[in-house]
Formats: sequence, C-alpha cells, structure tokens
Amino acid sequence: MPGSSSDRPRAGWRARLHEVIFEADTPSGKFFDVALIWLIILSVVTVMLESIRPFRLAYGPTLRAVEWGFTLLFSVEYLLRLICVRRAWRYAVSFFGIVDLLAILPTYLSLFIPGGQALLSVRALRLLRVFRVLKLAQHLKEARVLMRALRATRYKITVFLSTVLTLVVILGSLIYLVEGAASGFTSIPKGIYWAIVTVTTVGYGDIAPQTNIGQFIAAIAMLMGYAIIAVPTGIVTVELSRAAHHEITTQVCPHCTREGHDSDAVHCKFCGWKL
Amino acid sequence: MPGSSSDRPRAGWRARLHEVIFEADTPSGKFFDVALIWLIILSVVTVMLESIRPFRLAYGPTLRAVEWGFTLLFSVEYLLRLICVRRAWRYAVSFFGIVDLLAILPTYLSLFIPGGQALLSVRALRLLRVFRVLKLAQHLKEARVLMRALRATRYKITVFLSTVLTLVVILGSLIYLVEGAASGFTSIPKGIYWAIVTVTTVGYGDIAPQTNIGQFIAAIAMLMGYAIIAVPTGIVTVELSRAAHHEITTQVCPHCTREGHDSDAVHCKFCGWKL
Amino acid sequence: MPGSSSDRPRAGWRARLHEVIFEADTPSGKFFDVALIWLIILSVVTVMLESIRPFRLAYGPTLRAVEWGFTLLFSVEYLLRLICVRRAWRYAVSFFGIVDLLAILPTYLSLFIPGGQALLSVRALRLLRVFRVLKLAQHLKEARVLMRALRATRYKITVFLSTVLTLVVILGSLIYLVEGAASGFTSIPKGIYWAIVTVTTVGYGDIAPQTNIGQFIAAIAMLMGYAIIAVPTGIVTVELSRAAHHEITTQVCPHCTREGHDSDAVHCKFCGWKL
Amino acid sequence: MPGSSSDRPRAGWRARLHEVIFEADTPSGKFFDVALIWLIILSVVTVMLESIRPFRLAYGPTLRAVEWGFTLLFSVEYLLRLICVRRAWRYAVSFFGIVDLLAILPTYLSLFIPGGQALLSVRALRLLRVFRVLKLAQHLKEARVLMRALRATRYKITVFLSTVLTLVVILGSLIYLVEGAASGFTSIPKGIYWAIVTVTTVGYGDIAPQTNIGQFIAAIAMLMGYAIIAVPTGIVTVELSRAAHHEITTQVCPHCTREGHDSDAVHCKFCGWKL
Repeated sequence: MPGSSSDRPRAGWRARLHEVIFEADTPSGKFFDVALIWLIILSVVTVMLESIRPFRLAYGPTLRAVEWGFTLLFSVEYLLRLICVRRAWRYAVSFFGIVDLLAILPTYLSLFIPGGQALLSVRALRLLRVFRVLKLAQHLKEARVLMRALRATRYKITVFLSTVLTLVVILGSLIYLVEGAASGFTSIPKGIYWAIVTVTTVGYGDIAPQTNIGQFIAAIAMLMGYAIIAVPTGIVTVELSRAAHHEITTQVCPHCTREGHDSDAVHCKFCGWKL
Repeated sequence: MPGSSSDRPRAGWRARLHEVIFEADTPSGKFFDVALIWLIILSVVTVMLESIRPFRLAYGPTLRAVEWGFTLLFSVEYLLRLICVRRAWRYAVSFFGIVDLLAILPTYLSLFIPGGQALLSVRALRLLRVFRVLKLAQHLKEARVLMRALRATRYKITVFLSTVLTLVVILGSLIYLVEGAASGFTSIPKGIYWAIVTVTTVGYGDIAPQTNIGQFIAAIAMLMGYAIIAVPTGIVTVELSRAAHHEITTQVCPHCTREGHDSDAVHCKFCGWKL
Repeated sequence: MPGSSSDRPRAGWRARLHEVIFEADTPSGKFFDVALIWLIILSVVTVMLESIRPFRLAYGPTLRAVEWGFTLLFSVEYLLRLICVRRAWRYAVSFFGIVDLLAILPTYLSLFIPGGQALLSVRALRLLRVFRVLKLAQHLKEARVLMRALRATRYKITVFLSTVLTLVVILGSLIYLVEGAASGFTSIPKGIYWAIVTVTTVGYGDIAPQTNIGQFIAAIAMLMGYAIIAVPTGIVTVELSRAAHHEITTQVCPHCTREGHDSDAVHCKFCGWKL
Repeated sequence: MPGSSSDRPRAGWRARLHEVIFEADTPSGKFFDVALIWLIILSVVTVMLESIRPFRLAYGPTLRAVEWGFTLLFSVEYLLRLICVRRAWRYAVSFFGIVDLLAILPTYLSLFIPGGQALLSVRALRLLRVFRVLKLAQHLKEARVLMRALRATRYKITVFLSTVLTLVVILGSLIYLVEGAASGFTSIPKGIYWAIVTVTTVGYGDIAPQTNIGQFIAAIAMLMGYAIIAVPTGIVTVELSRAAHHEITTQVCPHCTREGHDSDAVHCKFCGWKL
C-alpha cells in the first residue's frame, strides 16, 4: 500500500509532505484528509448539479469554472502524491493511484476532443469522477476489519453467486418459454433480467408474468429468493463472528497454554496465571 | 438520563411526584405510564383522523377540540416534569425533554400564526406530535439492551452506509449516462434515487431502465444489493451475540469486584482470584 | 397441550382412540395423522377451486358436495377428539380446538343464513377453513424448537416492531405533508401505508413520491428499512444459536462438574471421565 | 458419487481416461474441467442468442450448426464418461448423469419430432440444456461445505416454508374476500400469488389492494414478511457457524480414530483417550 512506512522517504521536505498527504496521525495530516474529503464531496455535488437541466441552463459557465477549479486542485494533489512517494510508479498503478488519475482526466480530455456529440461521450468519462468518493473508505479504520472478513468469504460467496446465476438462467429460460413475447419476455436475456428482478426481491413490475403457469413459476422464484438470501447473510455473519473472536484472542496462557482470553484479561481464566 | 436516582429530589411531594411520573416501580407510577401511552396513541389517532378529508369535513371542530384537550393535558404533564426534576434544565435539553416540548408546541403556534397559507405550514409542525410515540421506547427495558448493541455497531454501520452511498452515486451516474432523459433519468440525483430504490430491493418501478445496457447495469445493482444486505445483518448479529454473552456473565469477582467474566471462567481474568 | 400424557384416559377404547388421534408413535396413529394432513390439503384445494369462476360455473354442485363431505368428516373427527380426551373442555378452548371448530362451522352456518348478500358474508367465514392447514405445524417436531426460540425473542421483537411502527407513522406524516393529495397521499393513513410498503422494501409503486423532497424522504426511508432488517435477523439468530447450544449441553461431568458436552459424547472432554 | 476412488477402474487406458474426465488433480484433468466449463458457458450463450429475434433472423443457420457442434461434443463426452466409469449404471442414474443426458437429448429429439408447433415444444426441452451450467458446482470445493450445512437445516427450513405457505394461503383468501375481482383478485390462487409477492417483499405492483381494509391487510402481510425473513437467516447462520466450528477440529483420536472433537477438547469424547 502506498503510504506504508516503507514508501515514506527517510527525511527532508518530501518526508514531511508525505506525512501530511498520506498519513492522518499529525494535526496537519488530519486537516489535509478532512479538507480533501470535503473537496471531493463538493466536486461530486458540482457534477450532480450540472446534470440537472435548469441548473445547467442558469449556471452552466459558473459550474464549468468550478469544475475546472476542482480539476486543477486535484491535479496538483496528484502530482504532489507522485513526488513525495519514494516509489512513484507503485502508487501510480495502485488502486487509488488509478482512481486519482481517472478523477482528473475527463476534464482535460474535454479540451482535446471538442465538438457536439463527442462532448457527450466525454461527459461519460467525467462521471467517473465520482470514484473519488471511494477515497473515503481509505481513511476509515473500521473498513479494514470489514474488508478482511469479506475477503475470507470470497470463495463461499462465489459459489453462492454462481448458484444464483445458474438458477436465474434456468428461471429466465423457463419464463421465456412459458410466457413468450406477448407478456414482454422477448428473449432469454430478458427472461433472465426478470428472474434477477424477482429472485433479488426487487420486483419492478415492468415485466411480470400474465399466465397462470408463469405466475406459479414466479411464486416459486420469489420463495427461493426469499430463502436463498439467508445463505450470504449466514456466511458473512459467521466470518464476522470469527473476525471479532480473533480480535480478542491472540494470547496463550504461559502456564496452561490455553487460549480464548479477552483482550482486557490480565490473568488466565482457566488457571489464574498472570498473562 | 432524567429520572435516574441522582435527579430525584430527596423528599417531599416533589419526590413522590417524581416517583409517579418518572419511575414505573410503584403501582401508581406504572398506572401513570400506561395511561400516558394510551393518551399518546389516542392523540396520534386524532391527528390521523383529521388528515382524512371526510372525517375532517364531518367532525372538524370536534377533532380540533379533542386535539386542544390533549395539548393542554400534555402541557400540564410537561410542566409537572419540569417541576419535580431536581435539575429542570438537564431534562429540558435531554432528548425526551425536547420531544415532549415539540409534541405540544405546534397547537400553540397555530394560535399566533393565523391565516390561510401560514396555517398549512403550521400543520407541518403539528405533525411532529407523532414523535410523542417515541416515548414508548423509554418504558421498555429490552430497548436498552438493543440500543447498547446497536451503538457498538455505529462505526461499522457508518462504513457500510458510506460504501452503499458511494456505490449508489456511481450507479446513479452510470444509469443517467446510459439511459438518459428518455427513460425518466433526467438528472444524476434522479439516477441516484433509482439506484437506492434498486439496491435496497424496494423496486417501485416508477423509473426503470429500458435499454439492454441499462437493464444489465440494473441486474448488477440488484445482485450487489442482494449480497450487500448480508453485511449489516452480520455486524448486528455479532454485536447482539456478544451482548447476549455478556448478559450471561453476571458473576462479580469476590476479590476485585469487577464483572464481565465468561461463563466458563474459573479465575477472575483481572486479578486471578478464584471465582 | 391436549394430547399430553396427563390428558390421556388411563384405559379402554377411549385410551386406544386417543393414541390413534392425538399421538403419532404407533403405526395406526401415524397413518391417521398423514391421512388427516392429506384430507386438509384436499379440502383447501376444493375451496380454492370453487373461488375460480370457470370451475365454479362448470363443477359448482360437485364442489359443494365434496365440501360437505369434508365438513362431515372433520365434524366426526372433532367429536371423536372431544370424546377421547379426558378433559374435553381444555381441548375445546385450546388453540387447535378452536381452529378445528372454525374449520367446520362456516359450512353449517351457510345452512341457517340463506339468501343473496348474506351468503357472500358466509363465504368469508368459510375461508377460515384454511386455518386447518395450521394443524400441519402440530405434527412436526422441529417446529417446537423454532417456537421456543421465537418465544424467547418476543420482547425484543415487540420493541423492534414498535420502533418500526413509530418510524412508519413519522415517515407517513412527513410524506403526506410534502407530497399531498396530488401524488395519491390523500391522508396520513395512506402515507403510513406507503411508508410500510417502502420500509419493508416491498415497493409496489402504486403510490410513489413525485417531488424531489418526497423522493429524498423515500430514499432515506429505504436506506433505513434496508439497515433495520438486520435487527430482527440478529435477534432471532442469537436466540436460535442459544437454543441450538442448549440442545447439546445438558450433561454435567460427574467428575470435574464441567458442561458443554456434545449430545454424542461418551466421555467428558475435559477430564476424560465417563459421562 | 461417481468419480470416487471405488468407481475408478484399477488400471489401463480406462483408468487414465477416468483420471482426466472425473478428477481434477492432474494437469490434464484440470485442463479438461476448465475447458468443459467454458464449452458449457459458450453453449448456453448460443441458446440465449438464438432466443433473441434479430440474432435468430440474421444468423439462424450458423447458430443451429454451432448448437449441433456442442451437442455432438457433449455426446462424445457423455459416452466417454459411461465407458470409463466401472459401474456405468450408477453414473447414469446419478444427478449429474441425468443432467448430462438432458443436456444433449433436446437437440436429438428435434430430429424425430419435426413440424411447426411440435418444434416449439421441442425448444422447451432444449432450454433444459442450461442445466449443464449446474456442473459448475461440481468442481468447486466450497460448495460441499455449504451443501452439508444447508442439508442439516432442511427440516427446520421445511417447517418454516410450510408456515409461510399456510400464512400465504390465509392472506390470499382474506384479500380475495376483501378486495374481490374489481381490484384484480379474481380467485383465491390469484390472492395467494399476491400474498407471495407481498410477503417475500418482491412487490411487483401488478395486483395491489385498492380498499382501505385491503391495504391494512397488505401492511400486516408486509410487516410479517419483513420479520419472518429473520427465521431462515437465523437457521442457516447457526448451522454454518456449527459447520465452521467443526471445520476447525481436524483432530483424530489416536485410540479410536474417530473425529469431530471440539477445539478445546483435551480427551476424546468417545473413548476418553488423551488427545
């Protein structure tokens, strides 16, 4: 991870800059992080406001100027990050290095690719700026515990998701066959879309079975989705419970060699020996 | 908390009044609490009935008289609470002190701000009276265990909610770009509204993607929402399980008088004394 | 519970009848229970078929005859239950005693209350016959473990439900005020209906907010509902986990007096003593 | 299970073929499995593409040729599986033996049953080819742990599902009686369909109650469905937690060679031998 001690320059202004930009222990470092989060939120709000037609018509030029302000600010930040890290390349190809770059590129690209329709597609890239919000997670310590627990469940969740996908393909094919184009099921992919809408209990109602057999299949799909949701919940709960348990128990009693002590334990709870 | 022993006057009629109003141990205290809950429910029902047009047209004056009756009753109750508490100010600025005040203010405000449109906005404040129902939680002991467990999860839940909000902003921007105004996605905030409707599996269907790419993004969003729900559930379950575990251990060490021992503990984990 | 050993007559044909009707240990008792479940399912299917217009027009008299057949059969069963139980009154006022009676009454009532509109209201009572299906639960042993765990959670679930109801009343009042009759929110109860539809993530879409503020409130309501679902899940999981634990651990080692043994354990896992 | 060591021929080319087809330990065996999964996915995609009208019109003959290619390939695979297994019949009647057969049959059947409408019904069987995807689960080790935990919950889940079905029958009957055909509740089965849509929180909105009493019943149904979902989640979580606990204990008693000991066990719980 960029920002870890091995990536920090040993001394000089780069070390101090690194401390401010990448770390949150010192007052100035903390101030920088909080200010950055607010700037990111404000820049996202600007993008949102520009997408609302009345706002765009009334304050278009102002919004675009503010947007350029944010882009220049974040560009300076990106360059400073590159400079103060010892291995600039490792930061550049890290997840947040790429996100930081994607957050400033779209505005610059809109300069080189001018013109009507092209501008519209550039706006697409510009929307990626919202990824900047992802940085929020970087600064919260709790996220790491959650992430570790979720990573431990990735195989089980993969099995679960492939089962759901298989189920959804079969249900989508069945409903396409039973209902047909008359009810809006014009193809198997459309049927699969309906199956996902149903199994996940979202239920838009834009496509819904009309025939009795179709509604019977839908009822089965709903009950399955209703019961299946228990599986990922169970997986995550067990993993989080294990993570919470491991947070507590790392100590082994030097006398009876038993473990399972709470983090606030001073004496072994089995033999009374001082830990 | 107002009502705790330190806030009770030491003797006299104020101490007895405090016992009746703030405590539920004595028969009269219990009767007061149950009667109050019923009055609160009845006053909420009155507000509801007044909002139904046929009822308002038929029994408008009666309903308004009943409303004034409740307001006067709750005003007396509020004043008595202020009088019998030793530190009146601490009660007034506590959560339920503010709720108690908000529950009576709207009716009085409707006197000083008369007239057509103004009256309508006063009705808004009047609706806050439903907060009175929140008092219900005050009287149930189980609520405290739940609250303590939920408070312990607040950091993890914050991380979870900011992740969901980030996801929802990205999905909303994507769908706005892909679908555009033709399908009802007139702005990014509208797209975010759709994303929240979809990820939380509510699925109104008032705005739904029409294009194939849009429906593909919707399917991804649904599966994500379906899997993500497991995370807060896991967090709360682990915390409740830990709270339940601590409930079991009521043992107090006879030597250091500290508690919080596991049910299988033989020695006090703080001082090593045999339990 | 009727059917417990204390309610069984000590000897004679009534004791044998009790064994067949109320118990499922003997072959004849098991056969009776399975046959009864099938009869109940068939009678429910008959009621369903009669509600479908084409079926009613084509096979109306036949269906009504079959219905009378079932009613007479269940009446004989009800009388036999009354006869063979030692304390008939205790059975008659027990939950399943009342359900058994309600399952046969509607058909008889349709005799005494003839005529056009009256017949329609009788059909309402007739539908209560589906309660007969509830008997299914009686015969499954697993249900008892589930029931015990769920009963232990009833206080916490009550707290949870009253919190949800309070939330729903506040949200419903707010949306009624913000949206008004134009969007279909004609009264506070209608607003509460919408709030329940939204918080429980059902999301019919028959009433949906149209204004920006309304959609913002809806988004908050959805995220709350999405997070709140974690609470009852956590409560039930912890209680079921405790129940599962108690299923296993009832034995105490006679040597070291420690418990926590699995149900299949022969020796104490701590000191090796024979259990 | 076909593929277990007892089903493998002892020597010769059949043993080597068995290793490649049924096992994933050797490089060639692993390559075969991965290649097969990709072929299955591609064949499912072909079926999907053919269901989309524009694709069928443009590339109909090509898609049908590709389909035949896949069918012949999977037929060869099916025959090889039959040949290299020692007990061919046991494989043929196993779950994946039947799925493998169903995945190739529909294309052959389309030869013998030619003609307009008949062809359409053949397409129904052809869709069963998606079952081929189910093979995916066979190759993932995590699936086995999940499956064992889910199998342990099958009685509790059965109780839960029959309770939900009973509830849904009663709610469906009630809403049919209260709302009637005017709101789209033309029969009890239609009412049950609505009840399933509501209790599982899917909420299409294609049929929704219009009257006040109907909406009140709907609100109750939603709150029930919202609370009930906690039950299967709790059941699965407890079972997965128990499975995870048993995963930890890989110790085998050196005396009686039985396993299943808790992680804190000192003595074998079956024979009392020191672990």
